[in-house]
Order: sequence, then structure tokens, then C-alpha cells
Amino acid sequence: MRGSGQWGVGRGKRQAPASTDHAPLSSDLLRRLAPRQVLTSLAERRNYRYDAIQFGETPLAVVLPETTADVVAAVQVARAAGVPIVGRGAASGLSGGAAPAVPGLVISFTRMTALRVDPSRREARAQAGVVTLAVSDAARPHGLIYPPDPASLRTSTIGGNLAENAGGPMCFKYGVTGDYVRALQVVDAAGEVHELTRDAYDLAGLLIGSEGTLGLMTEATLRLVPPPRFTRTLMAHFPEVGACAEAVSQAIAAGAVPSKLEFMDRACTNAVEDYLGLGLPRAAEAVLLIDTDGDDLPTVEEERALVEAACAAAGGTVRRAGSDAEAAALWQARRSVSPALGRIRPQRMNEDIAVPRSALPDVVREIRALGDASPFTVVQFGHIGDGNLHPNILFDPRQDDSHAVHDLAHRIALVALRHGGVLSGEHGIGSMKRDFMRDAVDPVTLGALWTVKRALDPAGGLNPGKVLPEEVNG
Amino acid sequence: MRGSGQWGVGRGKRQAPASTDHAPLSSDLLRRLAPRQVLTSLAERRNYRYDAIQFGETPLAVVLPETTADVVAAVQVARAAGVPIVGRGAASGLSGGAAPAVPGLVISFTRMTALRVDPSRREARAQAGVVTLAVSDAARPHGLIYPPDPASLRTSTIGGNLAENAGGPMCFKYGVTGDYVRALQVVDAAGEVHELTRDAYDLAGLLIGSEGTLGLMTEATLRLVPPPRFTRTLMAHFPEVGACAEAVSQAIAAGAVPSKLEFMDRACTNAVEDYLGLGLPRAAEAVLLIDTDGDDLPTVEEERALVEAACAAAGGTVRRAGSDAEAAALWQARRSVSPALGRIRPQRMNEDIAVPRSALPDVVREIRALGDASPFTVVQFGHIGDGNLHPNILFDPRQDDSHAVHDLAHRIALVALRHGGVLSGEHGIGSMKRDFMRDAVDPVTLGALWTVKRALDPAGGLNPGKVLPEEVNG
Repeated sequence: MRGSGQWGVGRGKRQAPASTDHAPLSSDLLRRLAPRQVLTSLAERRNYRYDAIQFGETPLAVVLPETTADVVAAVQVARAAGVPIVGRGAASGLSGGAAPAVPGLVISFTRMTALRVDPSRREARAQAGVVTLAVSDAARPHGLIYPPDPASLRTSTIGGNLAENAGGPMCFKYGVTGDYVRALQVVDAAGEVHELTRDAYDLAGLLIGSEGTLGLMTEATLRLVPPPRFTRTLMAHFPEVGACAEAVSQAIAAGAVPSKLEFMDRACTNAVEDYLGLGLPRAAEAVLLIDTDGDDLPTVEEERALVEAACAAAGGTVRRAGSDAEAAALWQARRSVSPALGRIRPQRMNEDIAVPRSALPDVVREIRALGDASPFTVVQFGHIGDGNLHPNILFDPRQDDSHAVHDLAHRIALVALRHGGVLSGEHGIGSMKRDFMRDAVDPVTLGALWTVKRALDPAGGLNPGKVLPEEVNG
Repeated sequence: MRGSGQWGVGRGKRQAPASTDHAPLSSDLLRRLAPRQVLTSLAERRNYRYDAIQFGETPLAVVLPETTADVVAAVQVARAAGVPIVGRGAASGLSGGAAPAVPGLVISFTRMTALRVDPSRREARAQAGVVTLAVSDAARPHGLIYPPDPASLRTSTIGGNLAENAGGPMCFKYGVTGDYVRALQVVDAAGEVHELTRDAYDLAGLLIGSEGTLGLMTEATLRLVPPPRFTRTLMAHFPEVGACAEAVSQAIAAGAVPSKLEFMDRACTNAVEDYLGLGLPRAAEAVLLIDTDGDDLPTVEEERALVEAACAAAGGTVRRAGSDAEAAALWQARRSVSPALGRIRPQRMNEDIAVPRSALPDVVREIRALGDASPFTVVQFGHIGDGNLHPNILFDPRQDDSHAVHDLAHRIALVALRHGGVLSGEHGIGSMKRDFMRDAVDPVTLGALWTVKRALDPAGGLNPGKVLPEEVNG
């Protein structure tokens, strides 16, 4: 950093090298790691160039570490070779965070699956490759669960959840991934290992959500909680999307704190119905799925009644899940939105805006109007209790104009920002919403974020091309 | 930063200039600020050299800003003059965070008291000088409260709470200051203003708890929540301190989540009793104060019964608060510990360790033994539900050996670290526990924290001498 360095003072742009010759890197890796830990053939490497929403560059090599020491070795080799590094969990992310922007080394954490539950401390220690759901599965015999529940929790990994600070339906009441992290093991850009707690400077909190651009998260100590004793599930459907948003706003203003509060618009509901045939109301413009939970049944049911009343007042039709099986089917519907949409168009631009709840009716209506005026199918769903919406533009890259898609996505992001919202509720910025950061964050603060990035990754080798847009005056 | 810069690579130590001539600084400040905003006389300046636990250096000048623009002006003047800056709230902190380590400029935020509640968003926007309790007072007419409740909440400010990431009794169930921050306005070392949200890189989270060493927090958007409908208060007393810790560990293992769970040892109880005469059990070796709360009375009372059973099983005697007035008196006792201890010896070394709950009985007994073997009075109290203890060494600087005090404090800190604990639960590291950071954080990670510090405060002008110990190999 130059002597004049201050937050926000523009500095020289550094570009990670974009080598395309993989042979030297691979042989260096094979000197430090076992052959089963290094993938070098093109056919294998091509499997590591995408996440669930975006294609990136084919990596020069892929490492499958089994220990933190393996990660250190891989980082040291890549650093010496001047090759960028992209960390990868299950690649179920929805912002392009794990899709390499330049050819480099992918470190795939799926073999780092050690998991230990300590019931007396109510915590779990998990390596990065542990599947999210496995934490609750291991904790449940001890009367504990791990609440963060991204839709992909059956495949997503703790490392990926940490990188994107993932949320999920439960997060409205229980908080996101970062709220459950007590300690974090990180391998930095130089290959040094750090054991971070949350006191003094909260460096762990800075790493969480940074998408592997500041360090690689290899292990975490996660807080566990007792599950609620009772849960009640409701579905409500509405003849108009804004009315649904009004019901949400009213229910929460009346004092209800549902554990889940999810929204799907008509296009979503029909996509899921085509896919799974669960009997969802195809004609409704908006469907709400709601759980209320707690340890006291009368309170749980009272809260459900508050939500029912707000839905009815906004013109909705309410149906209670009559059994656990019916409740499970409704939640399977919600989790199936992403795969169901994938059947309509081969690709989608997925947004993750979060807006104040009081602005929801306007935001949902404005985005609906933008979609209707466009040549694309725009669907909306999301964790509406948090004001976290996922407008998706469905398109076919073989025939649709990618600039038009990007432009529409930009206009949707601007709706959120105009109503006091933010770009990302839970999926991260990735490569997908990186350009919109200039609308969301003023140049001085963007400079501060770049200052932090450069301090922790001076060579710019960690997941280049993610989160932060390039500085204009470099 | 040098080209080789990586986390953990030692770099040259920079020392903030320690000028003692205040006249040029004062005249520069008076060119940018109103006379009522700048204190220059020695008598006035001497009032800004301490916090509630430690004396520091008399500042060269004191600025009392009324707006963020005033803060920017003060930072620009101090920076141009090469003078360090210490932010200060109500100075009720307990780690020396606001006590200047070198003579410089103190920015005292007590006149920045703008506060606005938005009930529909369930949030408050508060300037740094707003008194903590004022947030809940303004929110309560809208059916909302701001849960973080440091013992000093009647005088402490939101800015000070942010700087130390303050906790309080409610934090066991409801979380600490940082858990309630949605957005943060920060003035950086160069005088630039940043509006930070919590997405992308969580720079706000990094600033919270950094004690003014990375930037000055001027305003925050705080999350508000509905208060619980019912609260029940209990007191339990024990013939031995370890038994009290066992009761806590057992009650929580049995599934109780009290909203407050506070501990005072015999010396504390007697100090408070001497001060206030509330009828506390003077002969007990340990007293627990417990609140259970919630919206459903049977659940609240069931949780109280779980705690009562655990206390009785550990050999404790339980008393329920029979009225709101009795409950209020018990909590007044807890909040009065600090002033009451100040009547025994003029000064104290106050620790803030946090240990796993399962380790509490051993930790409490070991610290008690260290105190008994020393020439000092050592008292223990704290938020025992979180494992957050405040062992205090009471001493008289006129006759006691400060090295012996520091050495005992160090041995107490090592007890916590040996049992898997951390140095600071809620008070911050400040100047008081700064030296112990070398035991708590390995050198590589300490280097990473220094890298972040240097990136955001390259000249080292923000509250020098706090949080991070000097690097050995600079």
C-alpha cells in the first residue's frame, strides 16, 4: 500500500494473472499432494467451472483437500505459481461466487467432512465440506439443531454457506449462518492458518460472506439450539401479489414472529406444480407459506391466528396444513422452486434483494410491472418475512440478448435500492451482482472495501472478479 | 504496505506522535468549529482523560461535535496536525478504551443525541451520543424495546456501546450490541464518511467492538423488538461459589433459556449491601439473580421451575421476587456492583473473561483460589449464563504494587484461556487487557489483525495503544 493510503483513496488496479497452461501447476501440486487429491484432465476440470446459476472459466487444476494442511499446501503452490484460487463447496450457490472468473486453481472442499458435536457446549465443529443438513442430523439425538436452512441444505456445505453467509426460511426468526459462528479456522492468501474467535477485531465476521475473496474458511465452530417443541404450517393464496406483501407487513406489525414466511408468485407456483404435482393453487397470483413455532402450543396457535387474520384482511384464502405430511409437502414445494424454474428456461439471472417490509407491496408490484413490460419471464419468490425477494429472469442464452437480461436485472436492483433496500439478503454478490455494487455503495466506501481486500489479499489471488467491481480511478 | 505484505508478516511499528503542545491544535480547531465545541483549558481537558476504570493522558484538546460534519472537521484538523484521536462516549467503559494512551484530541460524542424511531421498520436511528436507555424509552410507546442493557445503560451511549460491542444481562437470550446494528455511519481516519450496511464485506461488523481504532462510529440504525409480555424474577444463594456455577450449567443443560442469569460472589454482595442496604444474604458465598421471560405465562413459569430445581439440586436456597418492586430492587443491586466496589478500594483491575459454561465451576473455583492466595481482594460477578465473568482485583495505587496487580490479572486471564475461554465478553480489550492478547491470539493472527488496523488507519492515529499489543518483530 502506498504511504498516502487511506480508505477510499484509489490505488493501482491489480489483475490476477490468467495463465492457461496447466501442466506446471499440476506437477507442482502433485509434489505436495496425493494423486487422488489433484484433478488434471480436462474432462474432470470442466466439472468445476460452474455454480448453480452461472458458468465460469475451466480451472487449470482442481485440488480435493482432506485436511487443512492439504489446503495450505495447495495455497502455497498456487501462490508460488501466481495462479488465482477459487474455493468451492457443493456449488449450489446462486450468485456465481464459486464459478471461476479466470482460469486458476479450484479448491473443492467436499472431502473435508469431519464433524463433531459437543452437547455440553451446545456447539458443533465442522470442516468446510460438511453438508449443511448433516449438522442438524448429528445434533438432533442431543436435543439440538443448527437453524440456518438454505433451500439447498441437502447438498450445500458449511464452507459454501459461510462464504455466502447463507440464509433460508428459518432465518427470519433465527438468523443467518454468521449468527451461529463462534469460531472460524481460515487459511489466508499466504497459506497461513488462523484460528479466529469473535472478540477483539471481528475478523471472522469480515470473512463470513466474503465469498473466498479474503481467505479460505476450512473449519467452523457452530452454535446449536434446542428445536421448538411445536410447529404449525399454513398456506395462504392471494388474487394479487401486492396484497400478499400487505398481509405480511400487517401480520408482523400485529406482533407475529413466524419462524418461516415464504412467498411464491403465480409463475413459481405453476413451475413447481408442473414439476411435482402437489396440488398448489395454480390460479393464485401469490402463495404464502408460513410456519409458526415455539415451546408453548397456545402461543404458537395464537401467532398462527394473527397471520390468518392478516391474510384474510388482505383478501387472501387461508389453508392450514392438516398433518405433518401435508406440511412437509408444502415445504418441499418451496425448496423445489430452483430446480422447477430450471425446467422452463436453461438459464436464469437470480436476484437476492432485501427491502424494508413496509416497502414490500410497492417493490413487488414495481418488479412485476418491469417483468410484464419485458420480453422475459420474470418470477418472484423469497423469504418475504425478511423483505428478502428473489426476482428471477428466465432466459435462453442461445437466443436471448444477454445485455437485455443484465439491463433488466439492473433495473430490478435499482427498484430495491430506491426503496432503501440492499442487493443481497443471503446469496452473496458473486459475479452476478458485482456491477450493481456501484449503485449500492458510494465510491468512497467501495474504496474502503478495496482497502480491506488488498490488505488481506495483496496479490489479488483469492477469487478475483467477485464481490467488488473494479475501481474506476485506479 | 510493502509488496511482500501478507497477513501475519511483521512490518515496521509506527508510533503515533505524542505532542504535548496544544496551542496550535486548538487554534486550528477553532478555525473549523464553534468556540462552544472546543475545550482548551487544562481544567476542562483533565476531565477527559479517564474512563470508569483507568486514567489516561490529558488530551491536548477536546471537541464536542454536534453533527457528523463537525466530526469530519475535527478528524481533518487532527490528521493535518499529526495528532492522535480518541473517541469518547459517557466514559463508563471498563477496559480503558476511552482513556487516551498518548496526549491527543478527544472527540466526545455526548452532544450528538438525535434519535428517531421508525415503528413500521422496527428500527431506530441514533447518533453516537444517545444514551442507551433513551432508545428503549423512545421505542416503548410503539410496543418495542432495544434489548442490549449494559449495567451503565442510564449513562452509557450508543457510540460507546458500539465501540466496545457492549453486552448486559439481557444478552444471554437476546444478543449483544452488534446483533442489533442494521447500518452504521463511520468517519474514517482520513475524515471520509461511510454509510455501511451488513451485506458484501461486513465492514460494519469489523468496526463494532474495535474501540475507535479503525474509525469513529457517528450514527447507527438499530433493530428493535417487541418486549416479552411476562417476566419472573428469582434469587438463589449458595454456600459455595462452584456450586452456583454448577446450578447454572445444569439449568441450561435442562433446557432453560433465562433472559438474565447473573452471579455475584460474597464480597460483591456485601459491597452492594453496605452501599444500598437491600437485604441481600450477606453470609452466602454466591448469589444468582435470574429472570425468565416470554409471551406465555405458563412457559415462563415452567422455565423458572427448571432453574429453581437446578439451584436446589446444587445446594442453593431459592427465593422468588414477590412483586415488581422486589424484582426491581434485585436488579438495582446487580447494576450497583461497580459503584459499590469503588467504595472499597479507589481502583480496580476489571476482567471480562468468557468461558464455556461447562468449565464454569472449575474456573470460578480456580480464580477464587488465586484471589485467596494473593494480598488483594478479588471479587467475581458477571453474566454467568454466557460464561462471562468479571473477576475484579481491588487495589489502592498509592500503596499497592501495580506490577503485582497486573501479574495477578494475567494469571486470571490464563485460567480462562486454559479452559477454552476468551479475554473479553463485552467490555473490550482496551488498554487493560491488551498485553494479554499475546496469550489469546497466536502471532500469525495478531499479524493479520495488525494488517487490518494498518489498512484502515495507516498513520496509526486512531486511539493508539488499544486492543492490539505492539508487534515484537516490527
